[in-house]
Amino acid sequence: MKLVIGDKFNSSWSMRPWILLKHFGIPFEETLIRLGQPDTKSKILEVSPSGKVPCLVTDAGDAVWESLAIAETIAEMHPWHAMWPREAAARARARSVSAEMHAGFADLRQNMPMEITTHAPGTGATPDVLANIARIEAIWAECLGKSGGPFLFGEFCIADAMFAPVVMRFNTYAPKLSATSLEYGKRITALPAVAAWIDGAREGAR
Amino acid sequence: MKLVIGDKFNSSWSMRPWILLKHFGIPFEETLIRLGQPDTKSKILEVSPSGKVPCLVTDAGDAVWESLAIAETIAEMHPWHAMWPREAAARARARSVSAEMHAGFADLRQNMPMEITTHAPGTGATPDVLANIARIEAIWAECLGKSGGPFLFGEFCIADAMFAPVVMRFNTYAPKLSATSLEYGKRITALPAVAAWIDGAREGAR
Repeated sequence: MKLVIGDKFNSSWSMRPWILLKHFGIPFEETLIRLGQPDTKSKILEVSPSGKVPCLVTDAGDAVWESLAIAETIAEMHPWHAMWPREAAARARARSVSAEMHAGFADLRQNMPMEITTHAPGTGATPDVLANIARIEAIWAECLGKSGGPFLFGEFCIADAMFAPVVMRFNTYAPKLSATSLEYGKRITALPAVAAWIDGAREGAR
Repeated sequence: MKLVIGDKFNSSWSMRPWILLKHFGIPFEETLIRLGQPDTKSKILEVSPSGKVPCLVTDAGDAVWESLAIAETIAEMHPWHAMWPREAAARARARSVSAEMHAGFADLRQNMPMEITTHAPGTGATPDVLANIARIEAIWAECLGKSGGPFLFGEFCIADAMFAPVVMRFNTYAPKLSATSLEYGKRITALPAVAAWIDGAREGAR
């Protein structure tokens, strides 16, 4: 199994399946394609029909793209890992917040781009971004309240992987957050899989 | 089970789970909230934590939101229906194109809004929209080529439901399309579940 990703510094979509595989100890080959280079697009198109990273290439040679579809596929391939919550109602809610993250929060993504080694507190906080952040904090508070933590649905699952790049953005831009959000962000940042991704971003920093 | 939707005329995200449930003959109660009214937001927030439609409310009273998460949840609740392709590689590809549709094609969605009873050929075709359409046509051609049709993965599945609103847009704005895309669009439009949604849009037209 091969996972094709972009730079660890700023490829937020790539981070999700990478930390998911690492966290659950699933072996995979990593192919990193530098973004923003003259041959970036052609290199990605060789493996990923959508022209975007991340892309999972299965042992049979099939391409699976979009972080959420990769996560669903990895979960299905490893049913002995609780990548989604085991309980049906929690799983449906985990899928709801994961899909909301997958398709939404465009203002946050545009104005607070993931740049892991950047430290720029106070920038990017437009009113639309703050509305995005308020919704994210509401999701986190509700999920953590219902599950009791330490992660959104108890143990780390796909929903946490989907929101991990947001935690990286919060670490960089340091918007005002609730204590609940700050503590959750610290727990995500301290996960070995996440720390390994951050180390990779430092090593490959431009 | 209750599905909360917006107007059939223009709520493209609502159309997907609605036609999915109808096509597979799954009984559900429909709650339609008129969009763009002073009380729209508060009415939606009563049932859907994200403040958006569609929202599925299960018999246990749990809310499931985002069209893709609703589709995954409905599929899981009815494993005797092939809502996703039965074959693993096809299923992974179906999830990839569904997630790509869920999160992408913003230019198309903005410039060619779904307005089912509108007839406006030739409008909205900006260069970015045409790039979106080219990618959609490539997805359809590849899926139909691999499966042999008549739908993206053989029989009608979630991936077709995800793209059905795009077919509605193409019916309204009539961009230049390949014969393959036009024929696929006709087959989607003629499906009883889709025809029933279109009838609903005509009856509720503003």
